[in-house]
Amino acid sequence: MLSIKRLDLADARVLIEGAANKAREIGVPMCIAIVDESGNLIAFERMDGGKITSVTIAQDKAFTAAAAKKATHDYNAVNVPGSLAFGIHTEVGGRVSSVGGGMPVVVDGDVVGGIGLSSGTPQQDMDCAQAGIDHFLANRG
Amino acid sequence: MLSIKRLDLADARVLIEGAANKAREIGVPMCIAIVDESGNLIAFERMDGGKITSVTIAQDKAFTAAAAKKATHDYNAVNVPGSLAFGIHTEVGGRVSSVGGGMPVVVDGDVVGGIGLSSGTPQQDMDCAQAGIDHFLANRG
Amino acid sequence: MLSIKRLDLADARVLIEGAANKAREIGVPMCIAIVDESGNLIAFERMDGGKITSVTIAQDKAFTAAAAKKATHDYNAVNVPGSLAFGIHTEVGGRVSSVGGGMPVVVDGDVVGGIGLSSGTPQQDMDCAQAGIDHFLANRG
Amino acid sequence: MLSIKRLDLADARVLIEGAANKAREIGVPMCIAIVDESGNLIAFERMDGGKITSVTIAQDKAFTAAAAKKATHDYNAVNVPGSLAFGIHTEVGGRVSSVGGGMPVVVDGDVVGGIGLSSGTPQQDMDCAQAGIDHFLANRG
Repeated sequence: MLSIKRLDLADARVLIEGAANKAREIGVPMCIAIVDESGNLIAFERMDGGKITSVTIAQDKAFTAAAAKKATHDYNAVNVPGSLAFGIHTEVGGRVSSVGGGMPVVVDGDVVGGIGLSSGTPQQDMDCAQAGIDHFLANRG
Repeated sequence: MLSIKRLDLADARVLIEGAANKAREIGVPMCIAIVDESGNLIAFERMDGGKITSVTIAQDKAFTAAAAKKATHDYNAVNVPGSLAFGIHTEVGGRVSSVGGGMPVVVDGDVVGGIGLSSGTPQQDMDCAQAGIDHFLANRG
Repeated sequence: MLSIKRLDLADARVLIEGAANKAREIGVPMCIAIVDESGNLIAFERMDGGKITSVTIAQDKAFTAAAAKKATHDYNAVNVPGSLAFGIHTEVGGRVSSVGGGMPVVVDGDVVGGIGLSSGTPQQDMDCAQAGIDHFLANRG
Repeated sequence: MLSIKRLDLADARVLIEGAANKAREIGVPMCIAIVDESGNLIAFERMDGGKITSVTIAQDKAFTAAAAKKATHDYNAVNVPGSLAFGIHTEVGGRVSSVGGGMPVVVDGDVVGGIGLSSGTPQQDMDCAQAGIDHFLANRG
């Protein structure tokens, strides 16, 4: 029997809060998705002005990060022609994302969920995802 | 040019709060989705213990209610063999739902969004959706 | 070699005009789709206030009517449990519709296209589809 | 509550007219799609001779431009291996397009819809999309 550690809804809200704070700081309204360690959505918020395409993209980035236990920018780095991983972004019905902005949430070495941001540049999305994780890790008891 | 009224994120949180309060009262952890008047997701929360299937079902119910301007239980009533509307539940890639629990959010006669609940019985889902709407309408300025 | 008769864009506009006139008469803003004899879209209009779900549903009704050479309400009549056709509405990725409102456009015994309406009751959708066809047939040279 | 500006059907027809005029001028029959600010179709025309693949591609380009608030040729520029945005074209079920020919329609700084063209070269599609926007902006009251 396995024992799985998983983000709860309260954790998800803290992750969103940290990411949204950063998004407001840089002036880019974002879509923010938090999934559990299996890639299933726990919480989502579209800040006023966030993009419609990002509703799905944020969720796909979070899904990828948690379910593949890998940041989407790490997939980006190997998703180049000639690399054996090229084409990974069309897998799982296209839900695997190789666009920066999805990161696994790791606690004590275990992936317990994922966070995905979309609406800015990939770098802005990554910065906000990281801010969400930092805020979460700083506020755990 | 048209001028459209739409729920903002703060409104969406109030709708979720009202629905979640009711869900706690009846002891059924729910998935709760809020969409805008075009059916696009604004906010989502899966209460701890909410069902995984309900992650999608709650969103589809909210989508249906807003985008078709009709409660999903009203579609349910006409989605019977022999009715001219039979089969509506498989439309739009199966996103149209005829399972009770999705309701349009109406302000001053305009559909401004939709709420969708899933994880309980359809009647429980409907009760929580209505509780979310009641809470929202009672707390508008 | 086959020789195929097909609606052109001017024909499609006349079909839309006739359907929209009827929609205005009954006070229901509609989504109106016209497809060719192969089921591919020629023209589409969403009247101001038409439903978002109907964007797809109108197209699916028109597709079904032309590509299957059968009105969607005729599929509805046989899409009942126990009938050998039951379940037809989930075929072709769910694009086959058994909800009233899609009709083939027939000229000299040949199906040359299809019209699909959505946003009202199925009967209203059917009435507007028929009005589009009547207007088209009355205005051919 | 948010207040949103959106193209109406009359606006959409003017956009199509401008794009179609340009298409006739360069002798390339086009598929032309107009969507609202949320990416949902308002109007579509396939000029006689327009390509069947373009029925969907024109809609996807218009969807992308409006829903992501970005021209598809701007996505094209960053959708190269090694860029953090690489792979964006397979997102949202493949509806995000990075092929030139989709442009947001902007009025007073707000994205109020999108236009998508397909059947020519990407540059021809872009020229016709721009012609549609120019015609629309020149004919607003």
